This record gives sequence, C-alpha cells and structure tokens, in this order.
Amino acid sequence: MEPRAAGATHPLDAVFSPRSVAVCGVTPTPDTVPYDIFHNILTSGFQGTVYPIAPGKRSICAVKAYRYVVDIPDDVDQAVIVFPANVVERALQQCGQKGIKSVIVISAGFREVGPQGVAREERLKAICREYGMAMIGPNCLGVINTDSAVMLNASFARKMPDAGRIAFLSQSGALCTAVLDYAREKAIGFSKFVSFGNKAGVTEIELFDYLHHDPQTDVILLYLEELRDGRGLIEAARRVTRGAGAKPILAIKSGRTPQGADAASSHTGSLAGEDAVCDAVFREAGIIRVTSIEQMFNSAVLLTYEPLPAGDRLAIVTNAGGPGVMATDAAVRMGLSIPRFEPATTARLRDALPAAANVKNPVDVIGDARSDRYNAALEAVLDDPNVDQALVILTPQSMTDIDAIARGICDVHEGAAKPIACSFMGAADVGSGIRLLQDARIPHYILPEWACDAMADVQRVRRWREQPVARPAPIAVDREAVAAILDRAPAGYLNEDQALAVLGVYGLPVPSCRLCASADEAVAFADQIGYPVVLRVVSPEIVHKSEVKGMALDLRSADAVREAYARILRHVGQIAPEARIVGLLVRGMIPQGYEIILGAKRDPSFGPTVMFGLGGIYVELFKDVTFGLAPLDEHTAARMVQQVTAYHLLEGARGGACADLEGISQSLVRVGQLISDFDRIVELDVNPMIAGPAAVGNMVADVRIRLSE
Amino acid sequence: MEPRAAGATHPLDAVFSPRSVAVCGVTPTPDTVPYDIFHNILTSGFQGTVYPIAPGKRSICAVKAYRYVVDIPDDVDQAVIVFPANVVERALQQCGQKGIKSVIVISAGFREVGPQGVAREERLKAICREYGMAMIGPNCLGVINTDSAVMLNASFARKMPDAGRIAFLSQSGALCTAVLDYAREKAIGFSKFVSFGNKAGVTEIELFDYLHHDPQTDVILLYLEELRDGRGLIEAARRVTRGAGAKPILAIKSGRTPQGADAASSHTGSLAGEDAVCDAVFREAGIIRVTSIEQMFNSAVLLTYEPLPAGDRLAIVTNAGGPGVMATDAAVRMGLSIPRFEPATTARLRDALPAAANVKNPVDVIGDARSDRYNAALEAVLDDPNVDQALVILTPQSMTDIDAIARGICDVHEGAAKPIACSFMGAADVGSGIRLLQDARIPHYILPEWACDAMADVQRVRRWREQPVARPAPIAVDREAVAAILDRAPAGYLNEDQALAVLGVYGLPVPSCRLCASADEAVAFADQIGYPVVLRVVSPEIVHKSEVKGMALDLRSADAVREAYARILRHVGQIAPEARIVGLLVRGMIPQGYEIILGAKRDPSFGPTVMFGLGGIYVELFKDVTFGLAPLDEHTAARMVQQVTAYHLLEGARGGACADLEGISQSLVRVGQLISDFDRIVELDVNPMIAGPAAVGNMVADVRIRLSE
Repeated sequence: MEPRAAGATHPLDAVFSPRSVAVCGVTPTPDTVPYDIFHNILTSGFQGTVYPIAPGKRSICAVKAYRYVVDIPDDVDQAVIVFPANVVERALQQCGQKGIKSVIVISAGFREVGPQGVAREERLKAICREYGMAMIGPNCLGVINTDSAVMLNASFARKMPDAGRIAFLSQSGALCTAVLDYAREKAIGFSKFVSFGNKAGVTEIELFDYLHHDPQTDVILLYLEELRDGRGLIEAARRVTRGAGAKPILAIKSGRTPQGADAASSHTGSLAGEDAVCDAVFREAGIIRVTSIEQMFNSAVLLTYEPLPAGDRLAIVTNAGGPGVMATDAAVRMGLSIPRFEPATTARLRDALPAAANVKNPVDVIGDARSDRYNAALEAVLDDPNVDQALVILTPQSMTDIDAIARGICDVHEGAAKPIACSFMGAADVGSGIRLLQDARIPHYILPEWACDAMADVQRVRRWREQPVARPAPIAVDREAVAAILDRAPAGYLNEDQALAVLGVYGLPVPSCRLCASADEAVAFADQIGYPVVLRVVSPEIVHKSEVKGMALDLRSADAVREAYARILRHVGQIAPEARIVGLLVRGMIPQGYEIILGAKRDPSFGPTVMFGLGGIYVELFKDVTFGLAPLDEHTAARMVQQVTAYHLLEGARGGACADLEGISQSLVRVGQLISDFDRIVELDVNPMIAGPAAVGNMVADVRIRLSE
Repeated sequence: MEPRAAGATHPLDAVFSPRSVAVCGVTPTPDTVPYDIFHNILTSGFQGTVYPIAPGKRSICAVKAYRYVVDIPDDVDQAVIVFPANVVERALQQCGQKGIKSVIVISAGFREVGPQGVAREERLKAICREYGMAMIGPNCLGVINTDSAVMLNASFARKMPDAGRIAFLSQSGALCTAVLDYAREKAIGFSKFVSFGNKAGVTEIELFDYLHHDPQTDVILLYLEELRDGRGLIEAARRVTRGAGAKPILAIKSGRTPQGADAASSHTGSLAGEDAVCDAVFREAGIIRVTSIEQMFNSAVLLTYEPLPAGDRLAIVTNAGGPGVMATDAAVRMGLSIPRFEPATTARLRDALPAAANVKNPVDVIGDARSDRYNAALEAVLDDPNVDQALVILTPQSMTDIDAIARGICDVHEGAAKPIACSFMGAADVGSGIRLLQDARIPHYILPEWACDAMADVQRVRRWREQPVARPAPIAVDREAVAAILDRAPAGYLNEDQALAVLGVYGLPVPSCRLCASADEAVAFADQIGYPVVLRVVSPEIVHKSEVKGMALDLRSADAVREAYARILRHVGQIAPEARIVGLLVRGMIPQGYEIILGAKRDPSFGPTVMFGLGGIYVELFKDVTFGLAPLDEHTAARMVQQVTAYHLLEGARGGACADLEGISQSLVRVGQLISDFDRIVELDVNPMIAGPAAVGNMVADVRIRLSE
C-alpha cells in the first residue's frame, strides 16, 4: 500500500503528530515521571507547543502553567496524563470538553491492579468513546515520534532515540527503557516508539494500520504479552506484510511456556493464548516470531538496511578458517544454503588471492589479508549468479588493517545490489571498524552466527511474500442440511451417524453407513454395501466405544453381523446399563493407509482454528502437528500438510505410494469452513482419517463433534 | 584431583613456565609477526629471560641478538619459532642440540598446505621425539600464561589478557585474536591461553591433563575443528570433569553440519567426525558442547564466578514484568524450574514490597523500586529452601538508582551461598552498574535469556557430576566360540545363522533356530520347537531376503513348512540364480512388541560406538537415536535408552505395559562388548529387536554383522 497522499489524515495522526500538547499533572520536581515527561517534550525539539497543567503552579521550567486543560486559551490536539489514577477520569472529561483528539495516559492503577482498576479503566474507555478521543495506555511509558517535522518525546524515557526506519511497539513500558538504551549503543534509530500499556484504547492493531501508511517506517517491531483480539491482529498483520508497500513485522509474544504465561497473566491481568497455535497463526500472518530482543534487532537491522535477497544462497568471505566453519555450520542449521561458485568466480578469486587461500565457499582470504584482498573477494562472490547475499567475517590479526577493510566494504556496499552483512569479531580492537560500518548502515554482528540468524529471519520474510495468496473460497454445501441436524442436537457430542452425515454434507470422504435399529436391518445394509463391514454402537452416553466393547471389526458374513450385533448389545448393556442406545452403525471396512488427524477448535484468542497431524503414538510423542486459522484458503491448507515432519511419509519418500495430498488439503479446507459456519461447534476431531495412496484416496474412520448449548 | 605438590613437575611445565625463551627468526620490523612475538614477551612482564635469534642482527629492541640458538651462552627452556616453513626443521634440530625442552612453532606451511607440508610436519615430529621436546603448533598463534610468577605472552596477540581462572585452548589461531578482544570488553580473564594449531606435538589431550592439575585454572574452554584421537580426548575429559578437583570443560566442535565439516576439512586438512555421534560422546565424557563463543563465555563466567547450585530451581527478581515473563519463558524452555516459594518467603516479600508488587516467582519489585527493595527481595528468595539460584533483572526506569542497586547486590552476593546472576538490560544507562557487578565478579548478561542459557549449561555440569560412574565390567562369555565362527568367515556379511549364534554366545535373547538343509530337517525342527515358525533363506549373496522372496512367516503346520521350503527355493532360484544357498533357517515366531534397533559401528574418530533407537518409519523420520562409546557401562547404557524421545513408549507411559528396560540396557552393553572384543566387526545391526512387556522380555528378530578382511 502506498503512503497516504499529502493532506490525507489518519485517526492516529493526533497521537503521533499533534501541533499542541498539554501535559496534565506536571510537578516541579526533577527526576519524577510527571516532570520528566514535560521536560522531555520541552527539550527534545518538539515542533509544536507544549502546555503544563499543574494546579497551584504559575509555571514549570519557566513555561506558563494552567490549572485545568480547559483553561488553555488555544486549541490543544493531545493531552499526556500523569495524574494519580483516581484523578485521571476527571482530567479525561475535561480533555473531551476541550476538544482534544488524543490522550496518552501514563498513570498506572487500572486493569493491572484488579477489579477496581478494571472498572476505572472501563470508565476511561467510555469517556474516550463519548468524545472520540484516541487513547494510548493507561499504564504506559508514552509515545515518541522522531520525524523532524514533529520531534515529540511524550514519554519518560531518559533520552530521545535517533531517527531511523524501525517502529517499536511494546506492551511493557519497562522493556522500552532497556530497548532504547540498547539500541543507542548499536546506533539503531527509530521512526516511532510506542509503549501502549493496557491498550484500553489504541491497540497494536490500529498501530499496525497507522504504521503501514507511515512513510518514515520500514519495519515494525512488537513486544506483546496479551492477545486480546488475535483474529484482528492476524488480519491487520496480513494487510501490512504483503502487497505493495509491504512491511515486515517481527514480534515477541511472551508467555510461550505455561509458566511464562502464568507470569504474564499476573503481570497484565489476562490469560495468554495457547502457544503452539500462536506460533502457527503468526506464521500464517507473515509475523516473524522471535524469542529475544537481540534476535529482534539483529533481524530488523538487516531488513531495514539491506534489500530483500532473491534467495537463500550465502557466500562467506573470512580471514579466519575457524569462524568461517562456525558460520557455515550456523547458516546451514538455520536453513540457508552455501552454494558452489561458477568457474569464472573461482578463477577470479584464484587470481586475486594467494595460493594458500581457499577459493571455495566459504572463501578464506587468509590471516594476513588486507583491504585489497577483501574487496576483490567480496566483489567476485557478489557477482556470482549463484550467490544471493554475502557475509564478511574479520578477526583482528596482526596484519589486519581493520579500518581500511571497513572502508573498502563500504565502497563495495555502495554499488552492491545484493545484501551484505559483516561480522568484525572482538570488541575494542575492531571498534572503530564497526563504527565505520554502522555509519554506512551496513548490518554488523559481533558473532557470525547472529548474522546467520538474522539472514534466516529475512528468508522467512522473503518466503512469506512469495507465497501464493488466496482468499478462502466459500464452498458450495447444503448448509441448511447441517443446520437441520445441529438445531435438534443437544449440547455435547453429536451421535456418530449425525457427525458422519455432517462431514458428508461438507464433502469429506465418509464411508457408506447406516444407523440400524435391528440385526435384520444391519444385515440388509451389509448385503447392500458388501462385506466385510464394521458395527459400532451409537449412544449419546458413550464416547469411547472400545471401553464398553461397543464395536466389532472385519465382519465377513451375515451371520457374523448378527452374532456381533447381539454381542455388542449384551456387552454395552452389562458395562453401561444407563446408556440409551440409538442404534448400531453399519459401515464398510476402510482400506489400509496412514492414520491422519484433522481437528478444529475455537481458540480463545484466535477464534476457529484447524489442526493437522499424523495419527498414532509416535506423532503424539513428537508433537508433530500444525495449526491454521479457519476458514483456510487452499494454499494455507497445503502448507499445513507440508509442515509436519511426517509429510515425507505421505509424499511417499520411503518408497511408498504418494498419498492423496490434494484430498487431504481439501478436507482441511472443508473442516475449516464447517467450524466457521456453525458457532455451536466447539471442537471437531476427525481421528483418524485413513490416507490411502493417491489412486485410492482418503476415508474418515472416526469423528467426534462437540456442540455448545 | 589435587594440584600437584610443590616441586612436582609436568611435561608441559616447559611450555607454560619456561625460565628462559629464545625467539627464533625475529626481525626488527614492528607490525610483523616475528617482531611482535619477541616484543610481546619482552614487554608483558615475563619473569624469565628472553633471547632474540636474528641472524645478521646485533640486537633487537636493544636486546643482544644471536645467530643461532646454540650460540646462547645460557640454558634455554623454550624456543618460539617464527622462521619460514622451510627453515623450521633446521632450527628445531639446533633446539634439540641446545637441550631445549619445549618449542612453539608459529610458522605456517605444514599439514594445512597439502602433501609436501604433511611430510615437513612429520619431520618436525620426528625431531621433537628424538630430543624429547614438547611442541605446540605448527601454524598457531602461540601460548599465554598470566600466572604472576611467569607472565609469558609467547604469541602475536595484540595484548596480554587479564589474569583469570579460565583456560582457553583453540585449534584456530585467528579465533584467538577475536576472543581476546571480546573477553577484554567483558572483563573476563584467563589463566592460560593456547593456540595449538596443527597439533603435531602437544594436543588438547595433554593440555587437558596439564590444566587438570593447574592451580590457576577452574574451567577449560576448547575450540576444536578436528578430532584426531577422539577416544583419547574422551578418556582425558572423563578424568578432568569428575572426581575431586573436577573442572568443567566447554567445547565448540565446529563442522557440525556436513557443509561445515567440508569447510573445516579444507581448513585443517582432515576429515571431521560424524556429528551426532560427537554430540552423544561428548555428553558421555562430561564435555559441555556449545555452539557459539557467546554461549561458551556466558557459561564459563557463571561456572568460574559462582558455586555449583544444588538443583535447577530458579528465583527471578525483576523491576519489569515483561522481561520477567521473557526470562521465565527462557528458563523453562532451557529445562530450569521456577519454584513456588514457602509461605514464609511470600510473607517476607509482602512485608518488604508495595501492594502492587508481585510476590510470586518471578518477583516483580515494580518500576519505581530502589536498592532497598531489590535487596530485601533478593535476600528473601535466596533464603527460601525451594530456591537453588537467583536471577536479578533490572531495566533502567526513571526512579531506578542503578549503581546503588548494583552495590546492594554486591553486598548480598558477599554473603550468599547460592549462585546469583544479573541482567541489567540496556547499554550506556546501565554501564556503570554493570562495571560494579563485573568488578565484584558477579556474572552479568545484557539479556536475561542469556543468563538462563548459562544456567542451563551449569545444570549439565551438575547432572554430569551426580551421575553414577562405573567402569564397563567385562562380561563372562565364551569368546573362543565367537572367534571360531569369525575366523573362518570371509569379509562381508556373516550368514544369519552365524550372526545369531554370535549374539547368542554374547547373551542376547535370540530365538531358537536351526539352519536346515532339507524340508524334512526343517519340519523336524519345527515339530521340536512348536508352530508357528518362520523360514528364511541363508546365502552369503543375499542381504535383503524379501527382495528375492526368501522368507515365509507364520507357518502353522508341517505341510505349510514343506510348501514354503519348496517355494522359497524356487523363488530364489529364479530371482537370484547365482546365489549359493547355505540352507534355510527355521525359527519360532516372535511375539508382538515395540521394534527397537541396537547398532554398533567403528567411528573413524571414536572407535567402536553403539547406537540405540526405536525402529519403524517414524523414528527414522525424527532421527530419534542415541549413541555411546563401546564398551559401555550399565549406567551409560540405561541413559542411552532413556534419552530417546520414544522412551516414554517403552516405559509404558501411554498405558501400555512397561518394556524390559533392564534387558534392553543389558543387550546394549553386550553389543558394545562384542564390537570391542573383535576388531573384524565393522558394523552390527540388530534391527529389529522386539521389545515385549517386561514379563515377556525381548527377542532379536533380525541381525546383520559385517566383517572386514
């Protein structure tokens, strides 16, 4: 998407680009939050006007103070509120009356402190709604905009960051202070910096939308503890991360482990979503999920400074064999490839380098290499058509002219169309070289492994953009037929015959079956579909049929069916005398194949989700399953199937026949459609579906559908 | 092991503590390796005497120079040789004649440059052997000893490192220069610093032995590209890493991926070992294998500065919720536990902290916390009996008195018996606080996640020391009987009857079987052992019996045996007419159970190794196997079985019966004994063994044993 046309406005403009700001609750004491915020705005080059609201004071920092915001004689766009929690509500009322368009509520003491705080926060939301004010916070650090036309530091961060093309959004205010300090050390600049705290008003979703159109921002970073509207987040992220003007989003979603989620919940007062689902769903929204601040910034720098590479092939140039090997290990482990060079490249390298050099990838220019050798090698590998990007490694040996090498790399970088990253290993000895690289905006990493990690994240961005996109296409099904079944079913598990019927309507491959009320009827149906057949008891009280000996397999004759019919009734009557038996289901035997599982479930954060995995005990052990958001498009469904490790089995990699992969994806799409269409379906498990060879196809062997009230 | 008694000597004393050193090949030009080395020794406080050998010069740096080492009028303990490769041999001869005890050959141009260099290196080795000289190198950076009684910088590293209790050994010289620079930045000191290059003389194995007894060294770090004597390395590491005076070893073995191994091999001129085996074998030698320099030093600092914790339970104290959650996530992901506190601790925390604080683990002392709150919380959690170690997290918020908090932690640390690590997040803002912690030797990490990684490595050290130790006990077997079978067998695969017989002699559970030459004989044997039976063709030319239809299962009568006997002969005759048929093997059917694989193989680096895994396609897909060195002791064998993910199946975790785990371990021990006893066994695969319930036991279902010439 293109940046907004000149003059076009966005609802959050008043948050980031106010012409005038009132700071409500300023005190004259330095080193307190209220004072610091006012002082930050006043002294960080703000291009508008700032007014202190400080009841009882004539001025703060020599700037005329007002008792109430309504006393200010001019128009005010934004209010930053630092009053104690119990006064915020009244201040907000006055902001509304004053016609203020955005408020940043720094004050804590709301949802994070319990029920009383929740109520207080709800009242803030109501006031903002009433007056149409955009609210950041409460319980946050504030907002920073480094745009030279604005220069707003409406936060209590100690220093204004440098301008840059990275936007950082954080639910944790305290993390912001550490991040600002950390980024300054690495010469990383920001376009926007937002601590959104309890996100009672503006959430990460609206911020995504704003930043998507922000011409100062290239990459968006998010630290999130709590998924309130997971579905909305995903949809927003999908809009931002692809198409024209796409911007990468990197996110830390903390509370990954159950214990972490516990801690996150005691911290922000809400429950963290299920983590494996979050992983999968983020991936399908183009959000690069990372686990640490280090990884987030390492990757953000590469994405901001360098173009996207055309592929995953990495050339390494090093003056030290050991680090070259370690980088190769790391690259391959992270999914990058280390290509062979064209003969012409090898010849060029051989000409430019001494005999002892290694002219294969990773190229070793040897310990006594100076700038000329580095440049020749780097230019040669970048010109190679098999190379998509380059990593330059330097260790400070006695002959190494570090600064000259850095300058040489800067020269090559100027004219290079492919991404370059550097790793000057060490600290003080390589410090001035690193600064030269940083000044030229060439990504630098102390360890080559980190460069490889960052490059791997860039590959995730590249692959995401290259993935085919489709809207989930509505499937033509007899929705009414299913509605009729569900409408008369009580809460709990659907009877098996009904569940199979529902799947059948939605086009899943279900076996011919009939619910029979007598042995005669069962035999008649078996005669009709042919032997062998299976008999299964159907009762709303019986979920696990084998526990009550409620099934019989491989019945090869009418007599066998009769005998099994009687036996099942006898066993169930003994073991579960209270169970109401609706009938016995007769169906054909299902041919052999791999057991697969198709599941669907309503996630508290993301809404309807779909799960895929191979069945059987091993898979349970290895947790080899994938998730997707319902409804699914066909490409996403196909990727879900491909992402499980056991996919290689279905593909027939072990010499077996290839399974009907298209059919499996289709079934996933249909299951996703089903749970999306009917809110009463809480959970659905096709477990197992038998995946036969492609020529034979797949067949549902068992299904459970659970309904809510 | 105790440090050596005063006066006791070690063969490597002359390497690390020479009283006099000759530098052979010095030139008067600064910024060249030969000059730098001499200058380093001269100016870094060396407590002995240094002599420049510089043909044609009267003095270097105002120190009298000699033409040859034999011209020096005094005794010389050590020579550092920087002559060009073709002159080194002659210089070494003279060193020998002079009675020099150790030589450090800096010069490159040996094994790493190809066959000519290999020959040259072999000649150096011969000279050292002849004169009993210990040689470091060739192709190395040199040796540093920071012991104040020695102060030797016999290297071309730019600066002498600080003294410390970490010894660093590296096969890559270039990596050393980066490591020294990196360590200085983090205030990390070294006891010994050794670049051992091509390790033609002294290897990491002798260095382990020396450092084990070095009173200045607490932790040993190793960067290794090439395993030449893997078995020796393991044995040395086992001696160093446990028992009285045990010292942890952390190692990077590069070339983990096939491509990395390729690069490593082009770098050092030899082939890297198989990586998964290396992983497993390092673990069983107590070597903590790490993947990056960062991880290595992060963990080394914790091991050096702090005592070993009693367990894995971590308390976190933070002034910021977000980083607390991220640290909790990281800790749990790394296998640490986040315990609940005793009620008394919670009460203490509640007294000391404001109402809004979180008094559960992770403890949140809240953004406005100052030193008093940090100290109270840290002391309370350290006193809790459920806590083994603590992590203190600080983000620089506006009220945070960073230096005072650092000093407070130093005070608590003074009296603490449990390990403490800190993470002051940021850079410049927290810089002075970090320096205070570093000066007090309190481990500090910019990111809490790194602290957790380091703590996880410390747990590996702790668990290793707590593991029961046993020598592999020789098993009483009829070795002669096996020798008789193997002696008359040609190279290639043993016939199945012989392979089963060999396993039987070694006490593995093999089915009753007989090699039969006629259908009558087969029926007679089947009658004897009872039906059903299995028939399998035995021929040295047939490895895969199913490909030639050479087997029949589940034969339930004498007629079935006769029919199958004829059919197998007919099929094999058609499909593999050239195969010499030794006979048909008759054996009983094996009851159902899990398929497991027991393997043994000679590894080029480690010698005989044993492998364990569950059979079947899933396990192959998930590479769920473990390795051990043969012979195995019973504890190691039991651990191998426990380490596969599929162990939970064998344990009966899914409600199945528990397998005969003791029997599986026993079989592993016996397979390890077998390959150790007979050098001709190249490879051995029991695939599958059927693991039945404990009451039934296990049974070998198929085996292949391959012999060398």
